Amino acid sequence: MREIVVFSGSAHHGLAEQICADLGVDLSPVEISRFSNDCLQAQLQANCRQRDVYIVQPLVPPTQEHLMELLMMIDAARGASAAQITAVMPHYAYARSDKKDSSRISLGGRLVADLLSTAGAHRVLTMALHAPQVHGFFSVPVDHLTAIGVLAEHFRERDLTDTVVVSPDLGNAKTATQFARLLGLPVAAGSKQRLADDTVVIDAIVGDVAGRRAIVLDDEIATGGSIVELLDRLQQFGCTGAAVACTHGLFTGKAVERLRNHPFITEMVTTDTVPRPADWPELQVRSVAGLFAEAISRIHAGESVSSLFDGVDPSHAPPQPKLPF
Amino acid sequence: MREIVVFSGSAHHGLAEQICADLGVDLSPVEISRFSNDCLQAQLQANCRQRDVYIVQPLVPPTQEHLMELLMMIDAARGASAAQITAVMPHYAYARSDKKDSSRISLGGRLVADLLSTAGAHRVLTMALHAPQVHGFFSVPVDHLTAIGVLAEHFRERDLTDTVVVSPDLGNAKTATQFARLLGLPVAAGSKQRLADDTVVIDAIVGDVAGRRAIVLDDEIATGGSIVELLDRLQQFGCTGAAVACTHGLFTGKAVERLRNHPFITEMVTTDTVPRPADWPELQVRSVAGLFAEAISRIHAGESVSSLFDGVDPSHAPPQPKLPF
Amino acid sequence: MREIVVFSGSAHHGLAEQICADLGVDLSPVEISRFSNDCLQAQLQANCRQRDVYIVQPLVPPTQEHLMELLMMIDAARGASAAQITAVMPHYAYARSDKKDSSRISLGGRLVADLLSTAGAHRVLTMALHAPQVHGFFSVPVDHLTAIGVLAEHFRERDLTDTVVVSPDLGNAKTATQFARLLGLPVAAGSKQRLADDTVVIDAIVGDVAGRRAIVLDDEIATGGSIVELLDRLQQFGCTGAAVACTHGLFTGKAVERLRNHPFITEMVTTDTVPRPADWPELQVRSVAGLFAEAISRIHAGESVSSLFDGVDPSHAPPQPKLPF
Amino acid sequence: MREIVVFSGSAHHGLAEQICADLGVDLSPVEISRFSNDCLQAQLQANCRQRDVYIVQPLVPPTQEHLMELLMMIDAARGASAAQITAVMPHYAYARSDKKDSSRISLGGRLVADLLSTAGAHRVLTMALHAPQVHGFFSVPVDHLTAIGVLAEHFRERDLTDTVVVSPDLGNAKTATQFARLLGLPVAAGSKQRLADDTVVIDAIVGDVAGRRAIVLDDEIATGGSIVELLDRLQQFGCTGAAVACTHGLFTGKAVERLRNHPFITEMVTTDTVPRPADWPELQVRSVAGLFAEAISRIHAGESVSSLFDGVDPSHAPPQPKLPF
Amino acid sequence: MREIVVFSGSAHHGLAEQICADLGVDLSPVEISRFSNDCLQAQLQANCRQRDVYIVQPLVPPTQEHLMELLMMIDAARGASAAQITAVMPHYAYARSDKKDSSRISLGGRLVADLLSTAGAHRVLTMALHAPQVHGFFSVPVDHLTAIGVLAEHFRERDLTDTVVVSPDLGNAKTATQFARLLGLPVAAGSKQRLADDTVVIDAIVGDVAGRRAIVLDDEIATGGSIVELLDRLQQFGCTGAAVACTHGLFTGKAVERLRNHPFITEMVTTDTVPRPADWPELQVRSVAGLFAEAISRIHAGESVSSLFDGVDPSHAPPQPKLPF
Amino acid sequence: MREIVVFSGSAHHGLAEQICADLGVDLSPVEISRFSNDCLQAQLQANCRQRDVYIVQPLVPPTQEHLMELLMMIDAARGASAAQITAVMPHYAYARSDKKDSSRISLGGRLVADLLSTAGAHRVLTMALHAPQVHGFFSVPVDHLTAIGVLAEHFRERDLTDTVVVSPDLGNAKTATQFARLLGLPVAAGSKQRLADDTVVIDAIVGDVAGRRAIVLDDEIATGGSIVELLDRLQQFGCTGAAVACTHGLFTGKAVERLRNHPFITEMVTTDTVPRPADWPELQVRSVAGLFAEAISRIHAGESVSSLFDGVDPSHAPPQPKLPF
Repeated sequence: MREIVVFSGSAHHGLAEQICADLGVDLSPVEISRFSNDCLQAQLQANCRQRDVYIVQPLVPPTQEHLMELLMMIDAARGASAAQITAVMPHYAYARSDKKDSSRISLGGRLVADLLSTAGAHRVLTMALHAPQVHGFFSVPVDHLTAIGVLAEHFRERDLTDTVVVSPDLGNAKTATQFARLLGLPVAAGSKQRLADDTVVIDAIVGDVAGRRAIVLDDEIATGGSIVELLDRLQQFGCTGAAVACTHGLFTGKAVERLRNHPFITEMVTTDTVPRPADWPELQVRSVAGLFAEAISRIHAGESVSSLFDGVDPSHAPPQPKLPF
Repeated sequence: MREIVVFSGSAHHGLAEQICADLGVDLSPVEISRFSNDCLQAQLQANCRQRDVYIVQPLVPPTQEHLMELLMMIDAARGASAAQITAVMPHYAYARSDKKDSSRISLGGRLVADLLSTAGAHRVLTMALHAPQVHGFFSVPVDHLTAIGVLAEHFRERDLTDTVVVSPDLGNAKTATQFARLLGLPVAAGSKQRLADDTVVIDAIVGDVAGRRAIVLDDEIATGGSIVELLDRLQQFGCTGAAVACTHGLFTGKAVERLRNHPFITEMVTTDTVPRPADWPELQVRSVAGLFAEAISRIHAGESVSSLFDGVDPSHAPPQPKLPF
Repeated sequence: MREIVVFSGSAHHGLAEQICADLGVDLSPVEISRFSNDCLQAQLQANCRQRDVYIVQPLVPPTQEHLMELLMMIDAARGASAAQITAVMPHYAYARSDKKDSSRISLGGRLVADLLSTAGAHRVLTMALHAPQVHGFFSVPVDHLTAIGVLAEHFRERDLTDTVVVSPDLGNAKTATQFARLLGLPVAAGSKQRLADDTVVIDAIVGDVAGRRAIVLDDEIATGGSIVELLDRLQQFGCTGAAVACTHGLFTGKAVERLRNHPFITEMVTTDTVPRPADWPELQVRSVAGLFAEAISRIHAGESVSSLFDGVDPSHAPPQPKLPF
Repeated sequence: MREIVVFSGSAHHGLAEQICADLGVDLSPVEISRFSNDCLQAQLQANCRQRDVYIVQPLVPPTQEHLMELLMMIDAARGASAAQITAVMPHYAYARSDKKDSSRISLGGRLVADLLSTAGAHRVLTMALHAPQVHGFFSVPVDHLTAIGVLAEHFRERDLTDTVVVSPDLGNAKTATQFARLLGLPVAAGSKQRLADDTVVIDAIVGDVAGRRAIVLDDEIATGGSIVELLDRLQQFGCTGAAVACTHGLFTGKAVERLRNHPFITEMVTTDTVPRPADWPELQVRSVAGLFAEAISRIHAGESVSSLFDGVDPSHAPPQPKLPF
Repeated sequence: MREIVVFSGSAHHGLAEQICADLGVDLSPVEISRFSNDCLQAQLQANCRQRDVYIVQPLVPPTQEHLMELLMMIDAARGASAAQITAVMPHYAYARSDKKDSSRISLGGRLVADLLSTAGAHRVLTMALHAPQVHGFFSVPVDHLTAIGVLAEHFRERDLTDTVVVSPDLGNAKTATQFARLLGLPVAAGSKQRLADDTVVIDAIVGDVAGRRAIVLDDEIATGGSIVELLDRLQQFGCTGAAVACTHGLFTGKAVERLRNHPFITEMVTTDTVPRPADWPELQVRSVAGLFAEAISRIHAGESVSSLFDGVDPSHAPPQPKLPF
Repeated sequence: MREIVVFSGSAHHGLAEQICADLGVDLSPVEISRFSNDCLQAQLQANCRQRDVYIVQPLVPPTQEHLMELLMMIDAARGASAAQITAVMPHYAYARSDKKDSSRISLGGRLVADLLSTAGAHRVLTMALHAPQVHGFFSVPVDHLTAIGVLAEHFRERDLTDTVVVSPDLGNAKTATQFARLLGLPVAAGSKQRLADDTVVIDAIVGDVAGRRAIVLDDEIATGGSIVELLDRLQQFGCTGAAVACTHGLFTGKAVERLRNHPFITEMVTTDTVPRPADWPELQVRSVAGLFAEAISRIHAGESVSSLFDGVDPSHAPPQPKLPF
């Protein structure tokens, strides 16, 4: 059987190390160097020949630097005769650019998918794509994991009386619904349509939140602006407080400032798909390294990964409570 | 300047003829023949060499037959040295298959996009894709038209007092919102999340419909089942009656039976992206042939088509009413 | 060693089951579903990851439906990380469309070969292509089996005194010649060139058929029209009766009516590359499932398949009679 | 309109010059050089930028040298930003390699077609492919000319009383039939199937040749061996003498020796798709340069070329005699 | 004739404006935006349909940002149906990564060339590639300009008595030799081979520099370290002072500090392929905008660009002095 | 583990046999045949299915014949379902064509690399490419061996007192420097820049050769012209005699005549990457078959090959002498 070799770019070395620890393999070293004219070069410092190579690199800021590092590591692995190259992108940030909502606009989600194929990636392993259609942007197989099992496990330790799961966006409420089901909770959703002139607006919370505590679930939090708006609305509709959970906790710009001491937030939970912010010690971070390690292990062994996709794999999701309702 | 040549498969000859009439060119003949073993063959019966070729074929039932006809006409045009081949698909039905919501499932929206490229299509001209992300499934340029200007024009002739535009699906309410704005009306939306066990359900109308008349706007109506459910809900929330408008009026299965004499429906309006059903004389059909003709004319002349994308092109959308609100 | 997984579309489930029985593996389930707008979707219901996947689907009527099913199953297998995907098409009907004999005509044999590659097929396993050049239309490796060993075995049980093998088409008489050699028989051939005006015609039987019984061998019989003409000509040249054998017995249109009770036909033999017609119990069907199973087994094991190509593989063709002539 | 630029490799400079003369353009110079290690290099010595470039090179011996020259000229034209590159191969010799009749054999006809695409050819202009299916080996458009109009014109000047057109191979008799129709003559064909053991042989002339003069028509004559055999057979069946016509008169090996003074041959006619042999002054050579010039002119102007494909284009084929039969 | 449209990323807006001024067209606006998660998006704000589009972006620091901007603008132009897209990269910095001098190293020069093709570039227009072989890394046509005519024009205004042109690297002395010929000057070259252990070293100036003034010519100066070493060596060999000229004056890191007041440097001349450093007012910058404008104009008109490649185009290079030797 | 199968074209059967002997596998037979029209055909006469196939063919004269043989063998292996195809080209002669130093010139080094990919090569194994950048012309992985360890071993048996290694070209002196280090010797280099008018010339030996014996090291010797010039120059600078070593000893044209009895040459050493000339018995030929066998063995086993790239692999290069300097 071809051996597993795991490399990491500079985006999130800690996650790569944890995945390797869970896999029981050593993280192989990479040297990323920079020419005096700012061009990058990657050298993989372990034999790739006929190996099953995994390159861990979430697309976190500085995103362009990390993307080019990833492309170069893939190129190096291809040139070094790797048998199979998997781009492990715990956060595929370019999924945000998924439609042409203006004329003559780039479609980053598809373009970057094509660049990865050109560099030589044979497969992508990722988590929580911004829209499920982005899967179809890739011409290589994509294994698409979910963190909702891990996040649900976090809340199962909490008192869940009078609690409701809230999706910020009714259009994408499917994930929140799955999450709510894991916890045996009801679900609600924010709804927002706003136009330049104020005549056509929908701004509502669908579902009952009055007198309840919320668990807000989002896929990515960057500056946190829309979460703060949702919290205002929840408060207005009688909600008594909110825990906030998200898969990709980027916390860019003023996010930490806005969210860390927000009086309505009881706790903030995220995962380690991206590095944690430096200045927020209370932030709860649950690791998805075990999920990625398990997925890599199954890919390598030719076992089914699909049970990891819905967050309810018996070996990873916690046992579900009896639903008493 | 290279000449325009337009061909039509057997899916919707009438639309192709109307487009040609609006363009001021003759529809060129095609012979589709069938081998005794049921294989198809297409022969284009007009010179394609160095021509700007447009092949009109919505993917309507029998969908597989019409898709293969389209692929073969494209293949024939390529072999005949066409300079540029545009697949004109007023209805790209395979957009429905846009995500991998189960394991090991085909992704028809992307696959068919790739098949069209393989056959030799250089560009796609289509209308009202089921999800905006489907645009990114194509590796060739896509010009993506909208029918909401044409549909709005229909309703502008009606009394719009106490009327509200209703989107069946809150997640895709953006188009309904644009449509409502063209008519100066408020907007509401249905919302539905249903799971196997009944504990997690959202089923609501977001926005105020009580005592109002609805204009329900959908992209495609096939069997009509979900529209009928929505009408029930509207009635329950106090709505007084509904006009129903859709871009792609397929009306398959029991749709005509269900909808033609539905007591809550005041009128049904659709466009001619697909052939009209045989047994529904009262059905209102507004033609989008003019929009396609204009798009083809601009593509051919190298003019911008983007103004046709949002339905508010001054030369095609009707004049907007003064917004008195 | 990677495991074999076999799937079947809806074209010929019985053959797939027989192949699996001969291989000693279970046929894995597939769910083909149809959207309300007539689009298809395929879901493979067994793990494909790193597996050696075979998808059995002859291109029989309704041919377009079956072709799209096949493309979708291949697409699903690719997306599910199959290691190797073989399209097993016991009858590649589109081989009929193999030349541009008119202007601006589609070339289905090449087009469909390219579509299969686009969907993700790595290899094709087929039988009795209409012309040997069609092999060159594929850009993936093709393993091209023959049924003449199986058909010869059938006749070896018969009295072959005063018997002659007849090819309907002198231009493609090579297969008939190989078949005749397997049986130790002489060979004759029909010859037909017919033009619009009657001045240039060749219509003849080359070789001696007078006072002999014929075994007519063809690759595909669809409507049976040309076979009936050949039988008339054989009768006119003094032949005393004919058995008819073909690899692909489609029997479309009026074929059963024409052939079932044809007074000159002593028996009709075909194989199960395609499903047998419903209303012809006397039709002799010899199975090629064993040949396909053997080929799949050898492909999987990396053994040579070429000995299966000429119908005289010692383990599959019957022992040849001593040639007494 | 983009300008035509014509280049020629070293295979057949004379034909290229004649084509240019007929087109009314100058043949542009090329410098083919050879490195001291025997590698070739081509330099096109006229501006190609945005031009419509035609490169004339039949694949005649030394075939590999001429093929590499052609690939290099195409590569140079692509690198020099030619708008459209047409490989003009009056003789595509690799069409001979069109089927896999043994195991693990190269398929030169398809391979070379792919190499031409890789080098950058956008189109192929050729004449009299060995089998019509070879058309399908190319992924670029192919314009496929015929010389039978030119050859028929030659014989129209002769006394055609009691003359029959003879195809050496009944399987490919279609071209001979078209040719016979142009001359208002009947047609016959040789038929040959020969096996290692002598029990299965067909060796016949189909059609009546006794007491008639033959015009034998073939696509390519190389060593002339099979033509000599056919002449023996014609003589045996009572034919009184034969003119021999072919499109590609290579006359390699002992061909000139065998054919030049063959007592049964009344005249030998060929075309200039390949250079004429040095030592055969009586050989009649009819030029196809005019046909190629006309095809290039129409391709460039975007006019239909298909009327040149069947040899009966009114402006090129001679007026047909009234058919008195 | 299709219209020229020129866009610029944020790398060097000034150069793009100057090129447009020289071309007599307006620079079309682009909006580069950044998602809150640091992903980029480009919107081209002028019609591209059927246009001849040029996108100006040298790969200067921050190089990864500018490369991604370029890829996205190309992607947007392709999606907007541009007829032809030319990536105008006055400095292709990734040419530095042109060989695999260690194991498992990325080859950025080739990788980035492939990424540009994937995004949709049809052609590259660049200047002074680090090694001439890098041309072969691109699969699209490359027009490769030189600045030596422009730089020679600068020095022609100087007193050139007792002056010698010096190439820092004997292996790449060809450009310096051409440059020297334009000025009628002799040429010398530095030579350096240094190894870890000191036994094998070559460190020399080839050619006579004693008592002469040098014009050092390099393609790119980044940190300036190797130029300073060369100046030391020139001084040691008796050279009396040096002007330094380079095409790509990046001046990164400590370059300005090192070079601005270097006592041996009489003047520093560069071009505007990259933005000038902020803190070096005495730096002489000669514009190559005119050369790029002329090349774009000729590409658009289908005229030969090759005369711009050797720096001695009569209309762009200055008149050469009479060579008195 | 998939089995190794090795084939050889007709370029250098002896080397292939030696490699096989060193590998401990049998060389599998190939039949190269030639159609009467000079087209080639290759048949591989051993099972390739799922095998790891190596095809040995240096590109030696007649280069075009050997290249086409190689392409056809690769095509045959691909069609026969080889798992992995490695083109083993001990001499990649087309590396000589590595830059566009004139307008509209072919770039053979890149073109042939692309042709090999098109035919189906998955990997290239070669030795001593003319320029290291040529590596980047290939889109498949390249394993690039060096002969300097083997050549150094030859000289280690000689008296190396007062000996200097000389590179003919200072620009490519890196290899000579590595070679010198293996022998513990100093290095010098020739330097030549010559222009049409005589004012700009550099013609020198860099490094000290007076009173020393030279070992001239070159990558390829074809006609030997430039070596003879270098020897003249060495003599002029006081060198006392020279051994000449090269990797690829083609010795075309007058090379043997020029070099065999050249009075200044003490011995000529080359390797067997190409066949030895017939008429030069004194020529020393060191075999690189062992290196190729070792590389193939490691590729097959998935072990690192990179240690073979610098000639100093402990198991292949001879033990290095203590460096006493």
